Amino acid sequence: MYLYHHPFCPHSRFIRLLLAEYGLEPELVEERVWERRPEFLALNPAGETPVIVEEQTPSVPGASIIAEYLDETRGLALAPHRLLPENPGERVEVRRLTSWFHDKMFVEVTEPLVRERIYKRYMNRAQGGGAPDATALRMARNNMRYHLKYIGWLARARKWLAGERMSQADLAAAAHISVVDYLGDVPWDEDEYARDWYARIKSRPSFRALLAENIPGMPPSRTYADLDF
Amino acid sequence: MYLYHHPFCPHSRFIRLLLAEYGLEPELVEERVWERRPEFLALNPAGETPVIVEEQTPSVPGASIIAEYLDETRGLALAPHRLLPENPGERVEVRRLTSWFHDKMFVEVTEPLVRERIYKRYMNRAQGGGAPDATALRMARNNMRYHLKYIGWLARARKWLAGERMSQADLAAAAHISVVDYLGDVPWDEDEYARDWYARIKSRPSFRALLAENIPGMPPSRTYADLDF
Repeated sequence: MYLYHHPFCPHSRFIRLLLAEYGLEPELVEERVWERRPEFLALNPAGETPVIVEEQTPSVPGASIIAEYLDETRGLALAPHRLLPENPGERVEVRRLTSWFHDKMFVEVTEPLVRERIYKRYMNRAQGGGAPDATALRMARNNMRYHLKYIGWLARARKWLAGERMSQADLAAAAHISVVDYLGDVPWDEDEYARDWYARIKSRPSFRALLAENIPGMPPSRTYADLDF
Repeated sequence: MYLYHHPFCPHSRFIRLLLAEYGLEPELVEERVWERRPEFLALNPAGETPVIVEEQTPSVPGASIIAEYLDETRGLALAPHRLLPENPGERVEVRRLTSWFHDKMFVEVTEPLVRERIYKRYMNRAQGGGAPDATALRMARNNMRYHLKYIGWLARARKWLAGERMSQADLAAAAHISVVDYLGDVPWDEDEYARDWYARIKSRPSFRALLAENIPGMPPSRTYADLDF
């Protein structure tokens, strides 16, 4: 299995966590989507990471679609730790939160932070490179506080974000948080419930590969790889 | 079953088509999401239509999540006309295209057209009302041409957009197209394959209620309700 990804694309990180929880080890292929490589667009016309490619099957593009595909083809093997629960009502809540992080938190927090602070370092001017936009960063950091509070509110009311068992929703939230944490933009002091939840999920073996990621010339924050932050 | 919707929200239209194909008749509750009613935000913290509410179950928010929920709770009853196919690989293609229309075409075409030309009529200044933004309209109309071409390309290569059988992907595309068609912004002359495909799907009984929608003071285009346009 090949995973086309970017090490700081939160949707790609979600799939890396998911695959690790399934016990699958894909070959990683780093993709810089802003280069719009024709070979990559043939795999996913939407031009976005992540995409998985397995022999003898069409490519599977997009975080949510890959998550459904993995549940359908490998989910039963994980029981009772299946990452999408069996019950339709519980599945609604897991999918609602997964989409909350992948769509809403992405637009309001992760996408602007990663674009302005990381991707732009690798883009030329025609691709949208240049200095980070200070207004976008300020808005994203402010939005981060509300998303952290929501995570804390969920973590206080429930054992895991979507209910009694760890699910895709936790991995989705953690994937986004991990990127923001690398950049040092998570105000951990503001919510101890969110912090405790993240410490729990970050300690899982599936997280190890992410915590070893490093951008040359831009080391991670002090808290990033520390399990007792 | 209650469906919180807006008659010109393409995601809501998709769910109305889906429910009609399932033979379900929800009570419709019109929601103007820009008013941000607290009772509605309690049903869906993301503040977006559509949402379905059934007795004894938590609310189900969002087009994709509702579609998965309906497939899981009522899908088998539709066989062999199930709107998500059985095979995992075929499900990937149906979900890929459904997301293409709900996410990409929405951002590039439907959302700006509906916001600028319809929603703004009902918004006050604080909610974002005012005159339509001519630049946004011009860009959306131009993007429409590419999306029509893609639909035509799919319709030429396959019987239905995602394969041999009608699926959610056709209903998603048709829901978006129908809103743009109401506004008279589909350049039908540019793609006969897309036109033939739309004539086929528009003739289904599930489409009737949509074709009867009307905005006071803003009648539909000539082609909107005409099955032989």
